[in-house]
Amino acid sequence: MPLFQTVGIVAKQGDPERVQGTLRRLIIHLHAHALEVLLDAESAHLIGAAIGAPVALEELGARCDLIIVVGGDGTLLHAARSMAVPGVPLVGINLGRLGFLVDVSPEEIESTIDQILSGAFDAEDRSMLQAAVQAEGSSGEPYSAFNDVAIHKWNTARMIEFETYIDGRFVNAQRSDGLIVATPTGSTAYALSGGGPIVDPALDAILLVPICPHDLSNRPLVVPGDRRIDVRVRGHDHGHVQVTCDGQTYCQLPPEATVHIDRHPDRVRLLHPKGHDHYKILRAKLHWGGHTQRRVNPC
Amino acid sequence: MPLFQTVGIVAKQGDPERVQGTLRRLIIHLHAHALEVLLDAESAHLIGAAIGAPVALEELGARCDLIIVVGGDGTLLHAARSMAVPGVPLVGINLGRLGFLVDVSPEEIESTIDQILSGAFDAEDRSMLQAAVQAEGSSGEPYSAFNDVAIHKWNTARMIEFETYIDGRFVNAQRSDGLIVATPTGSTAYALSGGGPIVDPALDAILLVPICPHDLSNRPLVVPGDRRIDVRVRGHDHGHVQVTCDGQTYCQLPPEATVHIDRHPDRVRLLHPKGHDHYKILRAKLHWGGHTQRRVNPC
Amino acid sequence: MPLFQTVGIVAKQGDPERVQGTLRRLIIHLHAHALEVLLDAESAHLIGAAIGAPVALEELGARCDLIIVVGGDGTLLHAARSMAVPGVPLVGINLGRLGFLVDVSPEEIESTIDQILSGAFDAEDRSMLQAAVQAEGSSGEPYSAFNDVAIHKWNTARMIEFETYIDGRFVNAQRSDGLIVATPTGSTAYALSGGGPIVDPALDAILLVPICPHDLSNRPLVVPGDRRIDVRVRGHDHGHVQVTCDGQTYCQLPPEATVHIDRHPDRVRLLHPKGHDHYKILRAKLHWGGHTQRRVNPC
Amino acid sequence: MPLFQTVGIVAKQGDPERVQGTLRRLIIHLHAHALEVLLDAESAHLIGAAIGAPVALEELGARCDLIIVVGGDGTLLHAARSMAVPGVPLVGINLGRLGFLVDVSPEEIESTIDQILSGAFDAEDRSMLQAAVQAEGSSGEPYSAFNDVAIHKWNTARMIEFETYIDGRFVNAQRSDGLIVATPTGSTAYALSGGGPIVDPALDAILLVPICPHDLSNRPLVVPGDRRIDVRVRGHDHGHVQVTCDGQTYCQLPPEATVHIDRHPDRVRLLHPKGHDHYKILRAKLHWGGHTQRRVNPC
Repeated sequence: MPLFQTVGIVAKQGDPERVQGTLRRLIIHLHAHALEVLLDAESAHLIGAAIGAPVALEELGARCDLIIVVGGDGTLLHAARSMAVPGVPLVGINLGRLGFLVDVSPEEIESTIDQILSGAFDAEDRSMLQAAVQAEGSSGEPYSAFNDVAIHKWNTARMIEFETYIDGRFVNAQRSDGLIVATPTGSTAYALSGGGPIVDPALDAILLVPICPHDLSNRPLVVPGDRRIDVRVRGHDHGHVQVTCDGQTYCQLPPEATVHIDRHPDRVRLLHPKGHDHYKILRAKLHWGGHTQRRVNPC
Repeated sequence: MPLFQTVGIVAKQGDPERVQGTLRRLIIHLHAHALEVLLDAESAHLIGAAIGAPVALEELGARCDLIIVVGGDGTLLHAARSMAVPGVPLVGINLGRLGFLVDVSPEEIESTIDQILSGAFDAEDRSMLQAAVQAEGSSGEPYSAFNDVAIHKWNTARMIEFETYIDGRFVNAQRSDGLIVATPTGSTAYALSGGGPIVDPALDAILLVPICPHDLSNRPLVVPGDRRIDVRVRGHDHGHVQVTCDGQTYCQLPPEATVHIDRHPDRVRLLHPKGHDHYKILRAKLHWGGHTQRRVNPC
Repeated sequence: MPLFQTVGIVAKQGDPERVQGTLRRLIIHLHAHALEVLLDAESAHLIGAAIGAPVALEELGARCDLIIVVGGDGTLLHAARSMAVPGVPLVGINLGRLGFLVDVSPEEIESTIDQILSGAFDAEDRSMLQAAVQAEGSSGEPYSAFNDVAIHKWNTARMIEFETYIDGRFVNAQRSDGLIVATPTGSTAYALSGGGPIVDPALDAILLVPICPHDLSNRPLVVPGDRRIDVRVRGHDHGHVQVTCDGQTYCQLPPEATVHIDRHPDRVRLLHPKGHDHYKILRAKLHWGGHTQRRVNPC
Repeated sequence: MPLFQTVGIVAKQGDPERVQGTLRRLIIHLHAHALEVLLDAESAHLIGAAIGAPVALEELGARCDLIIVVGGDGTLLHAARSMAVPGVPLVGINLGRLGFLVDVSPEEIESTIDQILSGAFDAEDRSMLQAAVQAEGSSGEPYSAFNDVAIHKWNTARMIEFETYIDGRFVNAQRSDGLIVATPTGSTAYALSGGGPIVDPALDAILLVPICPHDLSNRPLVVPGDRRIDVRVRGHDHGHVQVTCDGQTYCQLPPEATVHIDRHPDRVRLLHPKGHDHYKILRAKLHWGGHTQRRVNPC
């Protein structure tokens, strides 16, 4: 029995010209493997062709055993957050520019798909976060974040003031533009711009990066992945604080509210072509130096 | 049967006036508990009194079931590295200035000792690193580091050039003043000055912080604690590279050598007064803001 | 003839209890010197006593030859920006916490006033910036900033994209949370939180500090004080960009607009008690180390 | 009368293959203009051909009215420091990789030389520093630096402790790996790796960048270019402190010594091809973003 039988496709919105060709090639190749192919409604609309009834993005996870994302890191972040059923693996095809998450280039679609269908892939589980806003005794519905949850100033030019707790233990009170709470995956996104370290995705950790803190000794903090982070904004700043998950605004903080952030119960399973090398991607994306003189083997 | 029967004492060298009074109070109190007290040779010399034959620092671990360090963080780092027998717990009494590791103040010696002897303490295990220099097929004896292993330029004003590997996988080639490989304990020491994040000691991680890197995208990196780090200095810089453990020079790098760094098989057991709070120490040492307005309880 | 005859007073709003006592002492002392004292309307309201007709803040500069500010740095920033007539000197009395600009402590009011009235003071001129938003051919009214002009994202969680020009010459296109354009005075304010350097107020310079830039090589930039800075936000980000002067929101950027920033034609004259030392204030505010061992004289 | 009659050439040492071809083309072209060409002794040795008696590098300045440097930024730094006679302009030809200072590419040698000889160039004066070590009443001979003077730890793995004074006024006492005192030219060199800002070469300023400071609030400092910087190392660190100019070790600090640094009385005159754009070089060297969407004109 084949490893995968029903494949879902999620494509980037807003750039139809670049997506369509890749999407068609992908569908033709999957059909050639006699696989059932499902598209979410928006992706189906993109190619403007009926290839079966489109499926709501949230349902794709329940009906497919493999999801292929065509787009950039943002498209994959969006797809991962929207999957209701955990454990369905994702493959990311970029549209020409290597991403941290979408690492298959369009030229290699057919060969990569062939490999993956035959079981020749590297699987990797990445952690996510969930954030919930608690106000006046009742806790709001949790939101998912694959990269980061940012608690940041909104509609104000002034710093906000908040307290951070880890597993209920007070860490500090800070004045800043906000706080980025990130997964290792998110350590190369907004958290990096804020001065945070790069965290290996294999490390079970959560990263806290203050945004433009008033105190120069407020530095990025890395804690075990099973910690619960609570951020409580001080009174007069309510109404000027926003909670954002992966760059998508989630909600404005009501008065006397606390944001609870912890590890999401589900993990995202990414499939990579065999021989996947996270550091090779880092070198390419961050223009790090490579072997410039000679081949060495330290082992 | 009491928890501890033989207590070793290691005191800071070079500041006899401040140490002696604390040392005497400590010894009197331990004797009052009818405990055997052993001093390492240098500490015995400090108080200038025979309280039994002095013991080599390396032997203290084998003969005692508790070690009390009187001094600063450096004294405790030194004692921890020198213990040949793992698992013997350490308590740190500072000489007036709170340390990250020596968190008992001299005023509380008697009450803290009473508590610890009665089993009322918080125990915490901290990881260490070991570094070995491999040249021409034979590997050198490994050295221990509790804070960090630094590979840095020596006797030269120029940058050095080296390659970093994690578990044998190439990470990057960089030109810089060097690289700090640190434990979470060391994240608040030299690594912090180099721009690294603060890492919670409960996180099993290793931190790599480049020192003044030429490439601005060479940022601190946090990896799982079971990774092996290899640093290979490029040819023409041999002779200008030093390996340092916890600020103690270890050896100058011979030509064509690689430095292997990984987690030390032993961990350091620290005992703290009940209710120990790492973040409280961070707040005090880094002048972080505290509760300035009101008491809040986010739970 | 005395140096000063009419003294204006501007007091901090929003904290009447702490201000009133200081304000009364100040007024009594100035009256004892037979000086005319004018209060701006809001400050007059604060002490709730008629001491002559209150004056609009904008008029104080025209009617007084010395302005005394009672409050924090923010109060002095506000007063300095609002003075319509350049050259009238300002003295800042802080309310207990030393400021970078308000450096007279309440205990020293009488003696400091006596000294200043007798001509024993250090005068210092500080530069300001002016910002104007140009859209569709017509340029908006310029706003003043003593600390900084910030062009930053607004009502969005995404980065903004903009181009920077210096004297009409293209510098770069960047994606970030925004850009802080600061005077040397502002280098210890928001710009410092964003990672900028400390700039001596005697240096005629403008500072450009990117806020959380996507490119790690986008670093703070220091240019001569007579340069004109133009910031042009890229099309799709209009509506999500705000211009802020000294933390006061100025205007939301209309489509196809450019923000012009250059040195304000006027400078702010600050009077300090004799022997004023900017680095002493920096040491106090930034907790820098002082002479800890011995007195040295390098000259 | 032609602008230039005698042209000196200084070439990079240590890479003869890449240098020779460029050097020969350059000499042929200068001879075709009937100019006298002088080589310093080492450069003459490089091409292995007698084209007149070689000249000591220090004399080139006195005998030529234009100096052409063939190599990298380091070669030009070296030549600029060694010129005894101020005011002789320098042109830098890079060997394939654009430098901050050597901005003429080998392909454009002939056309650039033609332009410069005809007076079509942009001239720019850059400031230098001079450093002198004063010990026991007598001051040592001053050394020149075009990029920076670094006072840094030497032969020790520990931090050094020193005090900084500006125009005799105490700034702070710091523990760190050292201090980089840089010109605007040097702001893109070692100082940038240390976390300093980029300073426009047209700004008359001196930059002080601490190297891995223990206090997180010890930030880079930018002061007017006419300030004198004094650095006094604390007693017990003597013997472990080195003074370095442009990466060339200058001297080890004797006990009780102070390093005086101020602006060099001479400036370096650089000639660039017409239309020289410092920010274009910065964009290229730092991989800054350029115009990616459309051509805009902010004026």
